[in-house]
Amino acid sequence: MQFSLIAKDIQSKARAGVVQTDHGAIETPIFMPVGTAGTVKAVHQRELKEDIKAQIILGNTYHLYLRPGLNILEQAGGLHKFNGWDRPILTDSGGYQVFSLAGTRKIKEEGVKFKSHIDGSTLNFTPENVMDTQRIIGADIIMAFDECTPYPCDYIYAKHSMERTHRWLQRCVDRFDSTEPKYGYSQTLFPIVQGSTYKDLRVQSAETIASFGREGNAIGGLSVGEPAEMMYEMTEVVCDILPADKPRYLMGVGTPANILENIALGVDMFDCVLPTRNARNGMLFTTQGIINIKNQKWANDHSPIDAELGGYASTFYSKAYLRHLIHSGEYLAGQIASIQNLTFYLWLVKEARQQIINRTFRDWKEVMVKKLMTRL
Amino acid sequence: MQFSLIAKDIQSKARAGVVQTDHGAIETPIFMPVGTAGTVKAVHQRELKEDIKAQIILGNTYHLYLRPGLNILEQAGGLHKFNGWDRPILTDSGGYQVFSLAGTRKIKEEGVKFKSHIDGSTLNFTPENVMDTQRIIGADIIMAFDECTPYPCDYIYAKHSMERTHRWLQRCVDRFDSTEPKYGYSQTLFPIVQGSTYKDLRVQSAETIASFGREGNAIGGLSVGEPAEMMYEMTEVVCDILPADKPRYLMGVGTPANILENIALGVDMFDCVLPTRNARNGMLFTTQGIINIKNQKWANDHSPIDAELGGYASTFYSKAYLRHLIHSGEYLAGQIASIQNLTFYLWLVKEARQQIINRTFRDWKEVMVKKLMTRL
Ligand SMILES: [Zn+2]
Ligand SMILES: [Zn+2]
Repeated sequence: MQFSLIAKDIQSKARAGVVQTDHGAIETPIFMPVGTAGTVKAVHQRELKEDIKAQIILGNTYHLYLRPGLNILEQAGGLHKFNGWDRPILTDSGGYQVFSLAGTRKIKEEGVKFKSHIDGSTLNFTPENVMDTQRIIGADIIMAFDECTPYPCDYIYAKHSMERTHRWLQRCVDRFDSTEPKYGYSQTLFPIVQGSTYKDLRVQSAETIASFGREGNAIGGLSVGEPAEMMYEMTEVVCDILPADKPRYLMGVGTPANILENIALGVDMFDCVLPTRNARNGMLFTTQGIINIKNQKWANDHSPIDAELGGYASTFYSKAYLRHLIHSGEYLAGQIASIQNLTFYLWLVKEARQQIINRTFRDWKEVMVKKLMTRL
Repeated sequence: MQFSLIAKDIQSKARAGVVQTDHGAIETPIFMPVGTAGTVKAVHQRELKEDIKAQIILGNTYHLYLRPGLNILEQAGGLHKFNGWDRPILTDSGGYQVFSLAGTRKIKEEGVKFKSHIDGSTLNFTPENVMDTQRIIGADIIMAFDECTPYPCDYIYAKHSMERTHRWLQRCVDRFDSTEPKYGYSQTLFPIVQGSTYKDLRVQSAETIASFGREGNAIGGLSVGEPAEMMYEMTEVVCDILPADKPRYLMGVGTPANILENIALGVDMFDCVLPTRNARNGMLFTTQGIINIKNQKWANDHSPIDAELGGYASTFYSKAYLRHLIHSGEYLAGQIASIQNLTFYLWLVKEARQQIINRTFRDWKEVMVKKLMTRL
């Protein structure tokens, strides 16, 4: 993997860059649609590429490990071959799901023992086997095994957890560096900064993570319920420490406003289930603001969903039709709304990138943040 | 509407033709995907056109009347404008749903009083208002209001019901012929042959229906649970009476084998929920036979779903991936499987048409019926 910076904003810390992988280039800042079980819900791969224009998608190690399982993924020749997505893929480490989805779990120094949320069987994730798993899944960017602390989190727990995450990172690195990719293209490992909402812990963690000198770095444990201002404070502290010549990935973030604010602080990569999850509930992100398509006010609005955004779903279907579909419980509702929201997210980061290159990012961001949060 | 026959099979009663409508041509024999609530479930309009190559779709008057309702459909400028499908649409009369879906219903000479399955409100369908409703929906081909008798059905009931259906037809015709299309393109009315599984009633009904001299004719009340041989017997009796220079539409049929057998008896048009409903349950129709994609045997089969069929879903996605999606309860499973099954159905009738033109239909049909019913 290679990262080149191509522009920096003057009035903020926003950057535009390019990440080169063996599956092609990623223009940053970028948003990565979440493809939990090897599929971005309700979206065909062709639509992801041609309509949404996604450059990289995310897969969840925890879900993929349980279903379809490593045997099938390996026989397919990795996740790219299995799901037909031939651009870059990033996999999380499964840590977040182990801590949020799994039943009773026991965290020990060795790793985490937990029960599958599917069949209740006992499983064991360790830094070593999580590296092996991601090798088999075959992601271009693989994430270190960490503990994502909840919010709020007491200081002592946050500190001990962070220290364990650092020790786990050393084990991840040892395992990763002593193993080879399985499918002929290279993989890279991103470590994860933790430290909850404590500045001193975030500083300590960012310095530790930076010292590993990996090709990219991630910030975890945010967007877990803390106020947005607190999130921005942590992001800023951490971005100022993480090396500028490497991409910075803020995990699990967030709303359009969250994304623009964090770009302004120096973040390059984002992922979030928000656009797809909200889509299935009828909440649309558009270039004009937020639409709850279930509302009566759209019942007879036969205008396109988002004419300005362009693209198939946004211009072909009307608001009234989409509202009808969602009220009728039709599959197509989730399909159309998911394309709309993801197309919007990808448009948003592309637009942000252009504004950074034009050195007009900060003023544009101020206007956009207000506009995008307007409820129509 | 205009119908031209372009070829007849020698060894069977199969025909190839073209139905001309103001929304374009339909090459017969044809299968019409069912778009109950103005959407063919899980399929984008673009996919219907470009991948599945549907030439006409069906809408359900009962469903559309309840949701989105006539006010919204009229303001949209009709169903074509509402859902973006600019090729021909046929609507059923709602009769089938009133008799199968609605709660307590009362059949009187005037019409049917029933309770909505959505909100329990009392509604009243009459031959006249059902014509008006279909005028507003704006279908190219609209169906007479009939009673679809269940199977089995005692002779006296079947006879009285058929006679009422005939009286209702006169009222449908009177209303239809004294009203105008609403959106500038023409609409045509197909009457429906009933008579349950009684030959003499079917003969009587077919003669009555033929005597109305409409532009096309339909056969209803079959594929409701009777043995396939009984269905074919009724179809044959009726097709031999219905005029040869007009298209014949067999409602609600059926399996691939049912379709080929009925084409051989002179049927030109079909619709059925089978391909889409089975798709969502993991039952695939392929050029090689029937696949239950949930079965363990496909877990590690990384070959395309149906390479020979061609088209996006069939060749892009693997059996193992589709199996994984359906086991994971993913939207995309229904989307892929629906495209596969509908593409297959449209391929099947297109292939049948070519075989009729080549005068090789009957022999081809014998081979295909066996092949298509094989469980892989
Ligand atoms: Zn999120
Ligand atoms: Zn059917």
